[in-house]
Amino acid sequence: MQILKDKILKDGKAIGTDILKVDSFLNHQIDVKLMTEIGEEFKKRLYKEGVNKILTVEASGITVAFAAAQAMGNLPVVFAKKAAPKTMITGAYTAEIISFTKGTQTIIRVAKEFLKPGDKVLIIDDFLASGEAVLGLLNIVRQSGAECLGIGAVIEKEYQGGSAKLRAMGYNVESLAIISSIEDGKINFK
Amino acid sequence: MQILKDKILKDGKAIGTDILKVDSFLNHQIDVKLMTEIGEEFKKRLYKEGVNKILTVEASGITVAFAAAQAMGNLPVVFAKKAAPKTMITGAYTAEIISFTKGTQTIIRVAKEFLKPGDKVLIIDDFLASGEAVLGLLNIVRQSGAECLGIGAVIEKEYQGGSAKLRAMGYNVESLAIISSIEDGKINFK
Repeated sequence: MQILKDKILKDGKAIGTDILKVDSFLNHQIDVKLMTEIGEEFKKRLYKEGVNKILTVEASGITVAFAAAQAMGNLPVVFAKKAAPKTMITGAYTAEIISFTKGTQTIIRVAKEFLKPGDKVLIIDDFLASGEAVLGLLNIVRQSGAECLGIGAVIEKEYQGGSAKLRAMGYNVESLAIISSIEDGKINFK
Repeated sequence: MQILKDKILKDGKAIGTDILKVDSFLNHQIDVKLMTEIGEEFKKRLYKEGVNKILTVEASGITVAFAAAQAMGNLPVVFAKKAAPKTMITGAYTAEIISFTKGTQTIIRVAKEFLKPGDKVLIIDDFLASGEAVLGLLNIVRQSGAECLGIGAVIEKEYQGGSAKLRAMGYNVESLAIISSIEDGKINFK
């Protein structure tokens, strides 16, 4: 998606060989017009007959999932909530997400009433790196008896292997901007 | 806003004399069409010449702020991030929010680059109860030298006093559904 790549080059901040900060339009301040266009792009790339729900995880995933849901005829969005490990959780499907980069461990949960057998969901998130967050969401989808028909990310760091892992599992993965490497603050797209 | 009140009566879960759960359309699962209409309603009630930014706090505020920003000609949204107390925070305005109901203490922060003198913001959130979250956001607005031109909430629990406090400070407050009391699971609107 060219306008997204242009935006990343213009306003993204690459640090070292791994970190890309997009706080100015995606993760802290939100470029509303761009997000609405991103929603339309996800519709083009991922929508198929039968999809009835968008699943994401708080907080930055919510905007892109919402914009995609608008484009797909106002589908409901469900966002997984985060909780500290060892929090007592009832009435919900849970999964553990380990962030290798941050060295943190998070439990995500989705109330059982919002994900059911027969649901056909798209998983949409802001970033796809090692794929841990999506794997956690897939774990929850599996527990619920629902089905995942596709996975979308705004920005993929291809070199962290998440998309390869997910495609090897048979999933359709669409990332709107794919970064093949970051070198000394320079962003290289695939 | 009648369709919102109808939705609250149909799908909200009132518990005891205080708790209203709206997980099925606002806080966990999102009714995308309703949120888009809520955005339009905020425009009607709050928009004025010069407003250039919407400010909210993660996570549930993001959707309503985004929908309002779309209705107002794609204004940028800034969402304050939450951090545990004692987290080291640099380059950001911070404020402390104490939740009396939950007995928790949270630090919210907004990076200095996203809120500046001259900015004219609307603060929009999902719930307005005792007003602590909005007071925290106002504190940050004040620190930045920006100005708040209005405050919007989807659901107000009037009996917790937040809106009265904010109006006494001179702010324009608009809540789309105002609850005057909850009794034995029954919701009474103003």
